[in-house]
Amino acid sequence: MKMDDISKILKARKIVVDKALNEILPKQVAAPKKLHKAMRYSVFSGGKRIRPILAIESCFCCGGKIRDVLRAACAIELVHTFSLIHDDLPSMDDDDYRRGKWTCHKKFDEATAILAGDGLLSLAFETLTTGGDSGIKVKLIRELTASTGSMGMIGGQCVDIEYDGRKKLPSILNYINLRKTGALIKAALKIGAIAAGADSKKIKTMGEFGKSIGGAFQIIDDILDNGDSVRGFGKEGAYKKARFLTEKAKDSLSIFSGKAGNLRAIADYLVERKI
Amino acid sequence: MKMDDISKILKARKIVVDKALNEILPKQVAAPKKLHKAMRYSVFSGGKRIRPILAIESCFCCGGKIRDVLRAACAIELVHTFSLIHDDLPSMDDDDYRRGKWTCHKKFDEATAILAGDGLLSLAFETLTTGGDSGIKVKLIRELTASTGSMGMIGGQCVDIEYDGRKKLPSILNYINLRKTGALIKAALKIGAIAAGADSKKIKTMGEFGKSIGGAFQIIDDILDNGDSVRGFGKEGAYKKARFLTEKAKDSLSIFSGKAGNLRAIADYLVERKI
Repeated sequence: MKMDDISKILKARKIVVDKALNEILPKQVAAPKKLHKAMRYSVFSGGKRIRPILAIESCFCCGGKIRDVLRAACAIELVHTFSLIHDDLPSMDDDDYRRGKWTCHKKFDEATAILAGDGLLSLAFETLTTGGDSGIKVKLIRELTASTGSMGMIGGQCVDIEYDGRKKLPSILNYINLRKTGALIKAALKIGAIAAGADSKKIKTMGEFGKSIGGAFQIIDDILDNGDSVRGFGKEGAYKKARFLTEKAKDSLSIFSGKAGNLRAIADYLVERKI
Repeated sequence: MKMDDISKILKARKIVVDKALNEILPKQVAAPKKLHKAMRYSVFSGGKRIRPILAIESCFCCGGKIRDVLRAACAIELVHTFSLIHDDLPSMDDDDYRRGKWTCHKKFDEATAILAGDGLLSLAFETLTTGGDSGIKVKLIRELTASTGSMGMIGGQCVDIEYDGRKKLPSILNYINLRKTGALIKAALKIGAIAAGADSKKIKTMGEFGKSIGGAFQIIDDILDNGDSVRGFGKEGAYKKARFLTEKAKDSLSIFSGKAGNLRAIADYLVERKI
């Protein structure tokens, strides 16, 4: 697939996700207004919606429809936004800007930013309690909570903060990357398959694909902002590693044959991206 | 029921809840150790386990067993602990001590405290995904997320912070109390009934009881630390209001007749407590 074609698909999916997020989030006029304004500000601050799009494509690949996966896809983006707000806080990465806009605690204040993150995390799981089959909903919530929690993304952030400014051994760097970025990307792929009602083999395969592209995604992020992977492997070495992981990811999709075309194209897109 | 008898029941239930919380929380040696140490430190910092005990008694009153409700009861306590950790943060209430011990951010550091709260919130919902009937699990998660979120407890905290140090109109004070403390107590009662598989009338009744004792609970809290209710109504007026709400609460349990003895006794206990 050409890069132009996949860009068009990503844009179309983003519109669908943004519309659903707008419906899921409490209105800006709903009390407490300041809190809902902050939650909305951060969710609509220019995210590319990669994680929800991966969930949607995974669901399609497993034979599901958009209505099976859309709320779960949005829940993943809410968790992602929660993590960005809290990671940016003064006691963590202390960032003033994200995607060229004020971070939540700069635009509002620190207490509001902490609570906006908390509110988004709670809303993510609430979103997963409506629509569809109860058995599937429980599985989706289990997957998303486990990948978010202290053994997943939140745990990765904790270790990242602990090693801030210190040289990280490859094992530590791997631990952080697998959790801080990898866990939610892997979960997105599995969630798409679970939402489609796929069997455990397909769910597992999507998890493997997600783990590999999650690793590649983090390396490319590091290349773009001169992060840990570049310091560890050099820029060329890092690119080589990201491309290797992308090929590995695409190979893991063989059981889906032609149906996985979009997922393979997104894997290529993510490793070639410049932002 | 005599106060001594209900004290004994509360102590016995607390032992059961503490044991279950110990099993649910990741071990202190599990990576990341610092995060799990912080999560455990705050959960085992001397809480009376009022909320989980209310959930358990509500479940019993509706004909359920301890195995039906214990995990959900623990999930409520995890959400409660999350809220205490985040409320104590420097950008919120800025408290150094709670129940005579260092608050989480003083014992560890601010980043760890934020992440420990996040981890507990995620774990609470994860805990609700195992054991029992899927339909009931989804209802439990919906009840707990809704009462926790931006329209519930988190929203109440946001408005409380916004009005910090300012005189609060009765309507604002009511808004805050109903959400910041009331929402989770009400949810505990409803969750007990849901876990027991009770019908919607019983669940609603438990919610009404919970709303009234939640109001009384907040007033007594204010009396004990000279908070807003005392400033608003005077100490005697506040006591009178708390006792009125407690009687109203007990009256609402009439459909359960003798089965609600423990809940009525706990309502009295909460309004007479000195800590």
